Amino acid sequence: MDQSPKSLEHLVQALRKLPGVGAKSAQRMAYHLLQHDRDGAVHLAQALQSAVQHVQHCELCYTFTEQTICATCADPQRDQTRLCVVETPSDQAVLERTGAYEGLYFVLQGRLNPLDGVGIAELGLTRLMERAGNGVIEEVIIATSFTAEGQATAHVIAQGLSKRGIKSTRIARGVPAGGELEFVDLGTIAHALADRH
Amino acid sequence: MDQSPKSLEHLVQALRKLPGVGAKSAQRMAYHLLQHDRDGAVHLAQALQSAVQHVQHCELCYTFTEQTICATCADPQRDQTRLCVVETPSDQAVLERTGAYEGLYFVLQGRLNPLDGVGIAELGLTRLMERAGNGVIEEVIIATSFTAEGQATAHVIAQGLSKRGIKSTRIARGVPAGGELEFVDLGTIAHALADRH
Ligand SMILES: [Zn+2]
Ligand SMILES: [Zn+2]
Repeated sequence: MDQSPKSLEHLVQALRKLPGVGAKSAQRMAYHLLQHDRDGAVHLAQALQSAVQHVQHCELCYTFTEQTICATCADPQRDQTRLCVVETPSDQAVLERTGAYEGLYFVLQGRLNPLDGVGIAELGLTRLMERAGNGVIEEVIIATSFTAEGQATAHVIAQGLSKRGIKSTRIARGVPAGGELEFVDLGTIAHALADRH
Repeated sequence: MDQSPKSLEHLVQALRKLPGVGAKSAQRMAYHLLQHDRDGAVHLAQALQSAVQHVQHCELCYTFTEQTICATCADPQRDQTRLCVVETPSDQAVLERTGAYEGLYFVLQGRLNPLDGVGIAELGLTRLMERAGNGVIEEVIIATSFTAEGQATAHVIAQGLSKRGIKSTRIARGVPAGGELEFVDLGTIAHALADRH
């Protein structure tokens, strides 16, 4: 009955893997590209391959970069005594866009989620403790989300830092409870950063 | 300020071209792919390239196919005396999935939209008239949408067929007014097809 071409079907399936894209949207996207925007499809394919090939994790802060060390870590103007811990590269990008922070970053591999197999080792907490204990960092600002897992992650980090005699602060709960940083307006984030405690 | 890697930026821009994808979703998709699903990104890139390379328009009905002639057109079991006219390949796929139609199809290049430069020539109406006048077709079922442009398209087609002494019918207005076939449930479409007038 349904005899749509195989490569069209494969495209629909591949598009469905994108976050927030269901069966209908995926089909709509595939048909749109093939009917109206084949150049866009080729361009998207190239952009995907180029990003996968060139975007890696900064060896110091683990955010996305095309170099070994990202532009922020390599910038001598940044305040080397402050380290802000976030869950993801996109949280780091959002914080950076607020313009309210001049220090350095440390990007975790998400947040604690033991049920999904994300424990302390997977998150990169060991590397964070090493980095925070480098003798230059004076304050670690914990900017994980205010979800249950983000809070648990913040708690574990604060404990670990305290044990090593390193000062930590938490961004203020101006970020709405249950909120993902990525979806919060920049003003709120800037405010939460200023109000850290 | 915003120092996100160039190839990441390009990916976000390319994703924004997808229908229904805004700036935030595009960014979310790009970060998700790079952080959690690089295999999915490579797979999507390949699926895009393969679809662009292999999916073409059937030489008879203009729907998507990987062959010169699509499976429906090539099927001798289909009723060769009925021709259903739709706006897009995805409308054709939807009608086909209802299982309520056994004839052949003719896929237009959209619907009349003079302001956007889609006139009678761009739609493929000349080819439709040739096809409908092949001496075998006894009925042309006009299944364009019930949007203003879809109605105008139906009107122009019906006039052209009538001038050539070819019978045409219009699917019933069971399809909600202003509705795109693609987003209508299959039962409604099957009903509209049975009630054509
Ligand atoms: Zn870095
Ligand atoms: Zn065909």
